[in-house]
Order: sequence, then C-alpha cells, then structure tokens
Amino acid sequence: MSDKKTWTLTNVDERTWLDSFDLSSDIIAQASPLPWTIKKRTLHGGLTDGVDVIEVDNGAFFFTVVPTRGMGLWRGEYDGCKLGWRSPVKGPVNPAFVNQVDCGGLGWLQGFDEWMCRCGLASFGPPVKDVIVDDEGNSSEADLTLHGRIANTPANRVELEVTTGNPPVLTVVGVVEEAMLFFPQLRLTTRISTEVGSNRITVSDEIVNLKDTPAEFEILYHCNFGPPFMAAGSRLVSPTRRVAPRDPLSGEGMANVFEYGPPVPGFVEQVYWHSLASDADGNSLILLRNADGDRGAVLRFNVNELPCFTQWKNTAAISEGYVTGLEPGTAFPNPKTFERSRGRIITLEPGERYHADVTVEVHTTPDGVSSVEDEVTALLDGVDPEICPAPLPEWSVV
Amino acid sequence: MSDKKTWTLTNVDERTWLDSFDLSSDIIAQASPLPWTIKKRTLHGGLTDGVDVIEVDNGAFFFTVVPTRGMGLWRGEYDGCKLGWRSPVKGPVNPAFVNQVDCGGLGWLQGFDEWMCRCGLASFGPPVKDVIVDDEGNSSEADLTLHGRIANTPANRVELEVTTGNPPVLTVVGVVEEAMLFFPQLRLTTRISTEVGSNRITVSDEIVNLKDTPAEFEILYHCNFGPPFMAAGSRLVSPTRRVAPRDPLSGEGMANVFEYGPPVPGFVEQVYWHSLASDADGNSLILLRNADGDRGAVLRFNVNELPCFTQWKNTAAISEGYVTGLEPGTAFPNPKTFERSRGRIITLEPGERYHADVTVEVHTTPDGVSSVEDEVTALLDGVDPEICPAPLPEWSVV
Amino acid sequence: MSDKKTWTLTNVDERTWLDSFDLSSDIIAQASPLPWTIKKRTLHGGLTDGVDVIEVDNGAFFFTVVPTRGMGLWRGEYDGCKLGWRSPVKGPVNPAFVNQVDCGGLGWLQGFDEWMCRCGLASFGPPVKDVIVDDEGNSSEADLTLHGRIANTPANRVELEVTTGNPPVLTVVGVVEEAMLFFPQLRLTTRISTEVGSNRITVSDEIVNLKDTPAEFEILYHCNFGPPFMAAGSRLVSPTRRVAPRDPLSGEGMANVFEYGPPVPGFVEQVYWHSLASDADGNSLILLRNADGDRGAVLRFNVNELPCFTQWKNTAAISEGYVTGLEPGTAFPNPKTFERSRGRIITLEPGERYHADVTVEVHTTPDGVSSVEDEVTALLDGVDPEICPAPLPEWSVV
Repeated sequence: MSDKKTWTLTNVDERTWLDSFDLSSDIIAQASPLPWTIKKRTLHGGLTDGVDVIEVDNGAFFFTVVPTRGMGLWRGEYDGCKLGWRSPVKGPVNPAFVNQVDCGGLGWLQGFDEWMCRCGLASFGPPVKDVIVDDEGNSSEADLTLHGRIANTPANRVELEVTTGNPPVLTVVGVVEEAMLFFPQLRLTTRISTEVGSNRITVSDEIVNLKDTPAEFEILYHCNFGPPFMAAGSRLVSPTRRVAPRDPLSGEGMANVFEYGPPVPGFVEQVYWHSLASDADGNSLILLRNADGDRGAVLRFNVNELPCFTQWKNTAAISEGYVTGLEPGTAFPNPKTFERSRGRIITLEPGERYHADVTVEVHTTPDGVSSVEDEVTALLDGVDPEICPAPLPEWSVV
Repeated sequence: MSDKKTWTLTNVDERTWLDSFDLSSDIIAQASPLPWTIKKRTLHGGLTDGVDVIEVDNGAFFFTVVPTRGMGLWRGEYDGCKLGWRSPVKGPVNPAFVNQVDCGGLGWLQGFDEWMCRCGLASFGPPVKDVIVDDEGNSSEADLTLHGRIANTPANRVELEVTTGNPPVLTVVGVVEEAMLFFPQLRLTTRISTEVGSNRITVSDEIVNLKDTPAEFEILYHCNFGPPFMAAGSRLVSPTRRVAPRDPLSGEGMANVFEYGPPVPGFVEQVYWHSLASDADGNSLILLRNADGDRGAVLRFNVNELPCFTQWKNTAAISEGYVTGLEPGTAFPNPKTFERSRGRIITLEPGERYHADVTVEVHTTPDGVSSVEDEVTALLDGVDPEICPAPLPEWSVV
Repeated sequence: MSDKKTWTLTNVDERTWLDSFDLSSDIIAQASPLPWTIKKRTLHGGLTDGVDVIEVDNGAFFFTVVPTRGMGLWRGEYDGCKLGWRSPVKGPVNPAFVNQVDCGGLGWLQGFDEWMCRCGLASFGPPVKDVIVDDEGNSSEADLTLHGRIANTPANRVELEVTTGNPPVLTVVGVVEEAMLFFPQLRLTTRISTEVGSNRITVSDEIVNLKDTPAEFEILYHCNFGPPFMAAGSRLVSPTRRVAPRDPLSGEGMANVFEYGPPVPGFVEQVYWHSLASDADGNSLILLRNADGDRGAVLRFNVNELPCFTQWKNTAAISEGYVTGLEPGTAFPNPKTFERSRGRIITLEPGERYHADVTVEVHTTPDGVSSVEDEVTALLDGVDPEICPAPLPEWSVV
C-alpha cells in the first residue's frame, strides 16, 4: 500500500509561488532504495532570466523540467551519459526573449535547446498562412509560426507528487494553457514521473478542448539527442513498416536512413516519415543506439495515440547542433494546411480529452541495448520495412 | 478640511520600487467610516510572472489596478458581485509574453482579460496598414496592430494618495508613456480614485503630446462585463440617439440591440455604434442591468470627451468568454485609416492635453438600478432612438 | 608590477548570479589616486523591469554598462557633463518589452536610449528582405529587422576585473551570444575598461564565428550625443577624406555637414557617410565639440577595423530626441543586401575572430579640445576633404 504526498509550487489562480523548494528522501520519512532529490530553482541572467526549473534526481536518473517553457525536459543524465544536445542557444530560454514571428516565423528557434519539447497544440510544422472560418462563414487568414505556442507558454500550475511506495514514484505535474479569446483554448495537463532508481521517465499528457465548440489539435514530442547516443555509426532501430523522405534532398540519404554519419559542417537537415509496427494494443518503441551497442536511448509510445513518427537528421558540426530529433506525433511536421488535407489533424469536441504517453528509457550496457533490439525485432515479425526512395504524396508536399 | 498623504511605489527615473506594500485605515490615523486597505503585490508564475498589481478595498468595493498593463483595472467586486469577465486568458498577463504582431496583428488578445483596459493611444481598432508622412513629405507604411500599445506598456511611475477627509478618498496615480524615437510620444497620467465605502471608481485620465510637433491620438475604454451583470435577459439602458450596426452580421441583431441573449457556443461577435444624449454639459451615462433589475453596472462619462460609444456583444459560451464590452471612446474601433477619413482622430498640438473621465458605479438593489434608469429616461427626454438597420457610411467601412 | 583580481557577476552555465554587488577602492587594499566604485544593480518597474546595470565610477568618469542590453553603455558623466542623450524612451529597456518585428521592422527603436549601443552582429541597417542560401543551394527569405539583435540580447557571462596598478584599471567583461539553430552563431566578448581618474573608456570587442561554416558579420558602434556636446554651433572635427550624403535630403545639408544646428521640431534625420584619414597603423579619431570649444567628446578607433564612419544628424526638438550619432562601423547602415553588393560585409571563417576597439574620451577644457583638433589636423595633413554633393553609387542606394 502506498500514500501520496503533494506540494504545490505554482498556482496562478491562488497566487501560490515558491521561488525555490527542496524535497529529498531525507525529508520524507519512508523507505527508499536510493537517496533522491527534487529541487525547484529560479534562474537569473542572460536568456534564462526568470525561468523556473525543477531538477529531479531519482538516485540514478537526473533530469530538468522547465515549467516556464511549457513543461519541457531540458536536459538529463543517466549513468554518466548526457541526454539532450548542444544547441547553439544557451538556455533554458525565457519565452519573454523569444519572438516567434521573427525570422520569417522561425523565431521559435531562438528558444530551442531542450532535450524534449512539445510542438503544438493548435498547430506545429513550418510557418504557413492558414485560413480560419468562423461559425458565420467569415474567413480570415492567420500566419502560423514554427511549431506553435506550447513550448513558449509558462505553466500556470505546478505540483510535486511523491508516492511513498517501494520504490517511491516522483512526479512533476504541470498545467499549461494555450488559450486566448477568439482562438483555440487547449489545456495540457502533464504528469512527468519516474520511479526512484529507474532508467525511465514517463511523460503522460492529457489535452482538453476548453471551448464549447470543436477545436483542431495536434501534438508532437520533439525528443533531441546528441552524443553519446547520437554519433557516427549510431543507428535508429525501429519497427518501421514504411519510411519515406520528406523531400528530394532527404531522399538522397535513403540508403542509410537508419544510420547516422559524423558531424559535417554545413550539413542540411534530412527528415524522414515513418509508420511503425506495434503490438495488438498499439504499443511501440524506437531505439537510438551507438555504434558499439552499449548506449541506447529508447522512446516508448502508442501508435494509436501518436501514429506519425518523424526522424530528423541534423548531423551538422558539433558546434552547430549535431542532433537527431526522434519525434512521435499525431501528425507529421508538415504545414498544418497540408496535414489537414491528409486528414491528420485531430478535432476535439467540446470538453473532449486526448491522451498521449511517451516514456524515455536509457540503457548503458550491451545487454540492455540488445534486449530492446529484440523487442523491435519481435514487433517487425520478420517483415522488412518498405523504404520509399522519394516523397509520398500522402505524406509530403510534393 | 482634508490633508493628502502620498506614497511612491514606482519611479523609474529615481529607481524607486516597492516589491510589496500595505496601507490601511489602521495605519493612517484618521476617521474612516469603514476599514479600507491598499496592497501592492508582485505576481509570479505562469503568464503573470513579474506583473505588479495594486489591490484597493474601499470597505465596500474591491478592485485591482495593474501598473504593468498600462494601469488597467483587472477585476472588481462589490457587494458579492464580480466585476469583469472570464477570459480564456489566465492573467493579468505580463506584456513580455504578449506579441502584438502575432496572429496577424491580433496578438493583443494574448493578454486580454481585464475588466477595463484602455485602447490607444496612437491608434486602436483592428490591424491595418497605415501610411505615415514625415515633415519632408516622405511616406512610409506602418502595420498597426489591434488596439495599440497602451494596455501592454508598464507604468513608469505609480503613487498612492489618501485624502484624509470623511470619507477618505483613495487614489492610485500612474504614468504610462507610449513613446519611441520617430514615433508618437504620448504620456498618460491616470488618477483612479474611490471614496471609502462608495460604489464608485473614477478613472480620470490626462494624455499629453510630448513632442514639439502635432500628434494623432485616440483612446477607448474597453469595459468588459460578464455575469452577473451580463446574462440572458440583461439589457443595455442607454440614452441612445442613434445606433447602427458595425457590419451586416451585426445588423441581423438590430431588433434586439439593447438585449442580451444566453451563451451560444460559437457565437460570432456583434458590434454596435451609438451616439448618446447628454445633459447640457455633455454628461452622459449607460447602464447594464440584469433581467431582474437588481444588478446594474453604470459607466458615467462626458460625450464631449468621449463622443463615440461602442457596444460589443460577445455572447459566446461562458468558457469562451461570454462578455459585453461597453466602450466609450474618442472614436469607433474601426481601422484608424477609416476613422481618420471620417474626422474622428484627434490631433494634439505640442504640449496639448486631453482629458477624459470614466466613472464606474455599481448597483445591487432594484431601487439603485431604477434610479439610474430614470436618469437615462430623463436624458432621452421622450425621444425614441433612431435604430439603423444597416451600417452607416459615416460610421462603418461598408 | 600589477595584480589582477576578478569577480563573476553572471555566469549562466554555472548559474552564477548576483542581484546586487558593490566594489570600491575601500574594499580593495591598494594604492589608488582617487576613490572609485563599481556597483551592480537590478532595476525594477516600467520598461526597465529586470534589467541589470553596472555603474562604474573611476573617480572622475561615471558610466553605466547594461549587460541585459548586450553590454551597451547607457549613460555617462564626466566633470559635470552628461554623456548620452534624452531619448523619448525611458530605459534602459528590458528586451522582453521590445518587439523588433513591430512597426514594420523598426521595433528596435522601442528600446533605443543608450549612449553607445552596438548594431549587428549578423546584420544592421534598415529592415530589408534578405535571401539566404544553404549548403544544398536551397534559398529562403529572411526579414532583417532594424540594426540586428545584439543590443537586445542579454549577456550570459559578466565579470569584473581590477588591475591593482597605479592607477588601477577597472574592467567590465561581458559575453553576449547571438546564436540559434540554422542561423549565425556569433559570440561577442567585450572588455570595457577605464583607468582610475581618467577621461577615457575603452570598449574592446572580439567577435568569433562559433560555427564550422563561414558566417557573415558586421558591427557598428552607435554612439549618441545630445547636449552639452551636441548643441547649436557644435562641430564634427574629423579627418575626413571624403564625405557624401546618404540620400538627396541629406544632400541638401552638405554645405554645413560638419556643423550642427539648433533643435528644429519635426526635423527629418540627415545621414552622412565618411571615409577618414588615419596614421600609418590605421589609428584615427573624431571629435564632437561645442561652439565655445570647451566641451569635446572624442571617439578613437582604427579604420582597419572600422573603415566606415557614419554621421547621423537628428536635430529635432529636445523632447523628440535631439541627438547626433557618431558611428564607426565595419560597413554603412544601409540595407545589408546593398552593403553585401558593395563588398562591405565581412565573412568570418570557422573560429575566426574579429577585433574592434572604440575609445571614448571627454574633454572639458579649451586646451583639451584644441589638442584633439590638432591631432585631427595632423591626420588631414593639409588635404581638404572631398565633399560630395550627392549620394555616391558606391555608398548609397541611389
């Protein structure tokens, strides 16, 4: 039997705010296999000024949650291996310093340095002019900016939960609202939890349409890995049924779609769309493993929730952000207008909720890595992936 | 005889700043019919991070002034009745998180959740491309964004005044400058005052052109009411001489222009322009009363100062911001270019000052409400309003 | 022999931050000809909210460095004379309140009130649509906003250095990165130093290209003077070899290009491009002196580093920002596309560093001023400047 204890760090409605806060296995009188800590801090200086971060150390896995940036995961570390990447940006960046309209609608990149951030919730993908029609049939144009607003929206409620089982479960709960008059009103409630001593973090999200009218919705988990998981010779091990390039340039790399090359200065990004096999319940996973097979980062998710898997190869120089994005989503990061035309935009009815889970798991032994490879092999069930040499009209603007 | 005491909360020039401050009838040794308090707070977390608010409780009427948002009134409460509305936005929002250029120039809505905010000072109304001509005859284009900059400009000076009469008068003074090189330089000095125990707040504004060249100017007081004053069966009681719809869609609602319906999900806003009768000195008023006639919110102003009265009906679902805006202004919230063509943009000479007062008054008894209705009836003087079925070329872009 | 002591005020990587900090000749046990102080403060209220400033008083020269605004110099004072100008903006302004995209790309002016700020680093000059071509030959459009991003980028590292010689040297060191994925990654390291008791401040900048691919770069030092240095009858004394107007309107003022008139309400700015003589090592200087010749502000720099000198006359009313900008730069503040076409945009190879120094020197005696005039005369070496009546195709978009 387990108890649950909770602490509120932020509640805008009730004006609750803790500038700093410490919680640890010492403070909570309970059995714990390992000492753990949770620390809330407010950062100062540079582009980080005013950003609040929550640092969770489950005794084996350390990671940072950023309420100010829509409850993204900034960085992590497990068994001496860094999770995340080296972005040109020195963050985490306060959204107050991000101008998403700037740079032709690419201003989102001014704040982009997370290990895992969400894209959405009303839209993601590249900047595009969208047309919105109201209930009276009036249409108006709207310029959608790169990857939407959620990653630059501060949480208005943040709580900690500790379930006092053995092992204890540490959870950061956050509520982020992407809402304004005449526009979508979508509320994200996320539970980011980890068992003490485990190699896993689970991000469990619920999105609800707060309006009394239907609302479009899409979400993509932009999970970004640099060294040591992404390096020359690293491989994506995925139960891919079909993979196609986003564009002709990406198509030139189809022969090595699952492999990663070394850093190449000036490398222009390549992007691939995958459909994945799953078990009967929709559960699937992907693995990014290094050449030696002794480092592996795993994402587990359900293809019924997140049917579109995007692989972003950006093997530019280390200094320029050598990184791969492994991105399960409700849609592909094409212009929203295209995704709508292909039926991949979700419509939530009033009050309707959408649920999506992504679990990050880290392996630092050959056995751990190969056991995940076995899982992928089992899902593939002996079927070779269909590798499309050119963009598909169903998946790409061609 | 009365004395005046003053306290400076913010003075950017002198680097005066109080993170929090409390004042009350206990502290000031004086006769007061009721205990009163004034509290300054700095908010933290979510979109409110860094916003300073001043909470005034005159013993009967509680309201919040927001220096960070151009000295707007955020919310109020009188005799158990809430003043304001339930915006989809959870504010008050720090302007640092508002991008007015975003959403096709509608980004102002990212911060819009006040009970009363000002629109202006160089322009208000919908986004429009304006043309500016300098003293050498060079013309350049400027994209005006929704409702101008004043509501997203922090005050650089904030003071409290208490006049120790009986009853005492509590005043919040604020100075907000909308100014930059090569652009208008308009300074707003506002005095927001209330007598202890009264049902009234008076917003008394002075705007001055700081340049040595003439400057265009317009201001509109966006006063927004939801329940309990705005509800199904509520009525606008106004000394309307003439009322016309902004657009054909609004024209469909002319038969019930003075009535409010229940929340309708997806309702598209309807807007009406009014000219109002006044007394010989220009004093006028409007009343929003509920169906039972026991709740009434009144705005008192002078039509010589604020000749254009706008009624905004947005009877969408409660969750979507069921609200009416009652908006006395120097012009109608049309594109500034149109208002200029109709002669409704004011030009202030160098150093010239413009003065405007708006008094909010609340009634929670049938007698109080009906006495205001009698005032309106007296102003109408037996003349029925002219109800125009379609937009007028003088008032609307048609 | 001298020692060096250092203090870290801000280091984002190491989460070092001091909200306030005081250093003075009393604290440091050393010989000093005059008492000196360095104070770090964090400002609050209005548009300055959250801005950190470092106030240096070398015993004779007082000046303010603003880490939050890219290590600009906000204001100064020497021997009772103010350095800087009276901008319509009440700053120093937190970049969080500046929307550079606003006002047709002129939003930079929302924060412009410094005595000396940098323009750049990827671009400066007026808003213009640029075309960027990637390594695969794909081209995309980018809207460049006025004067680039560096002045609105907070420093992520700030240090103080005191060299304990006689006199001691006080230095503020700052690191500002203008970087984001897919865009230029330029790091500015500045050393702003002054000897105790001296009439000089030296700004010594190093810019490095952090990418592994070549990057364009330009920098301009926007040094702005109002009274008492700029006043009716003030003169620019410069070793001008050639001067031309930016545009025909400026050309109308060629007869008095070196003189300044009194404030004129509504005056439209005039801009002149100069090439300057220098000594054999490239060292040059310019002087702004008042009519009486007893006030002079000097800029010393090297024309090999900063070959393009811009003179900005904005003799509008005092209230409107009566000011002259004296602006040594790597290029002229034309649209970047034009400067590129004329070969004035620098390309930095991977890891390449660019160095530029600007020294500000103040004189408040006739002897001091005339000695600088003698320096300029010596550089001119008897050659009259070539005064071009109309814009030159080499220098101006004509």
